[in-house]
Amino acid sequence: MRQSLKALLTLRNWILDGTLSAGERLWEPTLATRLAVSRTPLREALVRLEHEGLVEAAERGGYAVRGFSPDYLKQTIEIRGTLEGLAARQAAEARHPASRLEPLHRLVEHIDTIVSRAQLDEEALNRYVTLNGAFHQHLLALAESMALSEALERIGNLPFASPNAFVMSYAHSASAHRILFIANDQHRCLVDALAAGEGARAEQIAREHARIAQRNLDSALAHPAGLNAVSGGALIRQP
Amino acid sequence: MRQSLKALLTLRNWILDGTLSAGERLWEPTLATRLAVSRTPLREALVRLEHEGLVEAAERGGYAVRGFSPDYLKQTIEIRGTLEGLAARQAAEARHPASRLEPLHRLVEHIDTIVSRAQLDEEALNRYVTLNGAFHQHLLALAESMALSEALERIGNLPFASPNAFVMSYAHSASAHRILFIANDQHRCLVDALAAGEGARAEQIAREHARIAQRNLDSALAHPAGLNAVSGGALIRQP
Amino acid sequence: MRQSLKALLTLRNWILDGTLSAGERLWEPTLATRLAVSRTPLREALVRLEHEGLVEAAERGGYAVRGFSPDYLKQTIEIRGTLEGLAARQAAEARHPASRLEPLHRLVEHIDTIVSRAQLDEEALNRYVTLNGAFHQHLLALAESMALSEALERIGNLPFASPNAFVMSYAHSASAHRILFIANDQHRCLVDALAAGEGARAEQIAREHARIAQRNLDSALAHPAGLNAVSGGALIRQP
Amino acid sequence: MRQSLKALLTLRNWILDGTLSAGERLWEPTLATRLAVSRTPLREALVRLEHEGLVEAAERGGYAVRGFSPDYLKQTIEIRGTLEGLAARQAAEARHPASRLEPLHRLVEHIDTIVSRAQLDEEALNRYVTLNGAFHQHLLALAESMALSEALERIGNLPFASPNAFVMSYAHSASAHRILFIANDQHRCLVDALAAGEGARAEQIAREHARIAQRNLDSALAHPAGLNAVSGGALIRQP
Repeated sequence: MRQSLKALLTLRNWILDGTLSAGERLWEPTLATRLAVSRTPLREALVRLEHEGLVEAAERGGYAVRGFSPDYLKQTIEIRGTLEGLAARQAAEARHPASRLEPLHRLVEHIDTIVSRAQLDEEALNRYVTLNGAFHQHLLALAESMALSEALERIGNLPFASPNAFVMSYAHSASAHRILFIANDQHRCLVDALAAGEGARAEQIAREHARIAQRNLDSALAHPAGLNAVSGGALIRQP
Repeated sequence: MRQSLKALLTLRNWILDGTLSAGERLWEPTLATRLAVSRTPLREALVRLEHEGLVEAAERGGYAVRGFSPDYLKQTIEIRGTLEGLAARQAAEARHPASRLEPLHRLVEHIDTIVSRAQLDEEALNRYVTLNGAFHQHLLALAESMALSEALERIGNLPFASPNAFVMSYAHSASAHRILFIANDQHRCLVDALAAGEGARAEQIAREHARIAQRNLDSALAHPAGLNAVSGGALIRQP
Repeated sequence: MRQSLKALLTLRNWILDGTLSAGERLWEPTLATRLAVSRTPLREALVRLEHEGLVEAAERGGYAVRGFSPDYLKQTIEIRGTLEGLAARQAAEARHPASRLEPLHRLVEHIDTIVSRAQLDEEALNRYVTLNGAFHQHLLALAESMALSEALERIGNLPFASPNAFVMSYAHSASAHRILFIANDQHRCLVDALAAGEGARAEQIAREHARIAQRNLDSALAHPAGLNAVSGGALIRQP
Repeated sequence: MRQSLKALLTLRNWILDGTLSAGERLWEPTLATRLAVSRTPLREALVRLEHEGLVEAAERGGYAVRGFSPDYLKQTIEIRGTLEGLAARQAAEARHPASRLEPLHRLVEHIDTIVSRAQLDEEALNRYVTLNGAFHQHLLALAESMALSEALERIGNLPFASPNAFVMSYAHSASAHRILFIANDQHRCLVDALAAGEGARAEQIAREHARIAQRNLDSALAHPAGLNAVSGGALIRQP
């Protein structure tokens, strides 16, 4: 188990940071040596990565690193937004007491202080990424649906699909302020909808919110240098 | 690979038909003997079943068969309906030519002839299940989203979530006519919405359509004898 | 005032039953004589009918009876369904206690007894129309929105837009059973959604429910004899 | 007719600018003298204002100026947003050629130049109001639904419900930039959704967009001085 987990984490990193590149055939004996693990745990790690969607069965047996078209990324963002919409709706319909929404309010205010800074440097973006991730995690928890948490966790294995995907590609970009300001206003409206028990509205805000990731993707694809700042960016195959 | 696939298929069957029961600890040496496979392919099969959601890590290592609460099933049906709603919307927005909708029209008419029979015996229900499955597969194909197909395939690993879940529990029930008549009318309206390019409507019909599975589940839970007719029924843990 | 109300009610009837026909120029002196009212109350009645949408300013001054294309009817049904969807959503989000939903439950059961009759004669359809109207009125009341009640009342001035539009055209038709069975199942699901506080679902069921009127319209247009049984049917101008 | 139109326009102005105040009983002889019109056209004007929702039947006959609670305003904004959502959906489903969306693109860019000004003085807000009104009119035209245009025109008789309601209350307010920046970003996303034929998305953006008016209303109610800058502001009765 330990060996298998070590192999999984290392391989995942190598794939996401581009050490292993999209389409590359994975030779198990070579990998076992590089990772210093035996074949059974390596195999287990590869099966997990296949289920996560990062490797796929190669034509002549074994595995290869998967590559992703911009279309596939777009689809994944849409699925994530749709499932987060479901989470938001269920969180609103659950009519939680105000105290359970309190952390969301505080995250929105906290993000506001970041977004209103004159300079959005890498450190500020990192801070945004942490708080934004916390917001989305908390929202999901309010849906109280184990099946939905599992489904979103599976989608989240692909880093392009995460609420924070492509945010880092804004480092040194003038648009960061505008896009993150809009994103946080959507957070605010979402919390208002939860507080008012407006499930339909909450669902639609969450969906539209995921379109920010889509806009970020479009912007990153238009300035491919930005893709290097993005986890998994090396796996994107532009047509 | 062959050994691993054999182990996977056999174990999956044993879990769904109740040979292995919910909560049961899976002893790998014993299983390896029963399945006549060696440990590496068995382990691989178990990892896959874990990703499919049918087994889970046990407290002291190894795996146990997973059990599902009615709430979890309800959540899973809702997720499936939400993703099929997305498929329906995207299929409508794609504005396919009439020829690509033709198979859906024919399936609706075909199902009509079954639903209008005086007797809905097991053979008729089996026929319904086949055609209904084909309808949902075809709809998904029209969305032309590989990521969505993968996501729905993962959800479909849990038999409770499938469009055909619990249909067989209607054998010998008088409600079968009514519920399947309504279900097929929703199919018909869905095809109309696709033909008219009405994505919002198509999405909502597909969502409401999945609520039929929810009603079937409620009915099956109220008459637990019916659960035996359902694949995976033995995994449901009533509170 | 009395004279004006008398003129309004009589003129509205004459328009809806076809005594005055679509496009007909309304000569105020002649009408005043026929109605035995003086000119000021007649004028007031005509202004009201203009706001209701049943007459329109004629080219050379005065008024003419308005005619409606099938497209216009379709649009009106869509607007009515959209506003009833809003009512259903707000009723669900209001989370009324079960006692306030009780009348809806009883109406659904009552309609069930009608729909399950072997014969749906004119008397049964009349009964359906009464109960169906009561269901929609009660739903609207649960939204607790005066502005929405006013907006739907304005739309309802056009008889084609009402939830009961075209129901009577089913007298002597074999499809009545099927369509009214589906309509009442939607009523049932709508009440379930209200009870569960599922606003998004309630909204979408109400919208789809209005599509029944659309199907009824299509069926009535295909068998124009049926239009005679419909209030305002004479105002429809087929292309 | 001329006299009646003159009476209508003058009375409407007097009501919206507070010359006649909420709840005020309208004495027809006095009004006829002030307006220098005879009784029949005055009566006609009052009937029209009743249908517009600005006056209502008084208890002992005749009419009184209507007053509106904040709740009623909120409901009206929600209805307007719902109907504009319908317009946006139908405009998207109509799949207009790019040339028909061109004016919307240009309006968005034009509004951008206003919103990005350092100072949003009254002149800039007036400019915004004009362009914003044009955007909403053009969107409605793309729905190609006469019935919907009529329904939205009726709603628009109440100035609180218009897309521009309460914008002027921002004169001298620091929040104007932020709120109008967000509003125009929604315009932009809406046009993108129309261009992509995404009806469901277009509908939801239009709905959420109307919530801006709701936020503007809340802000205006919290600083009642701002209400004076708003047409019809004098008719609002705070609880």
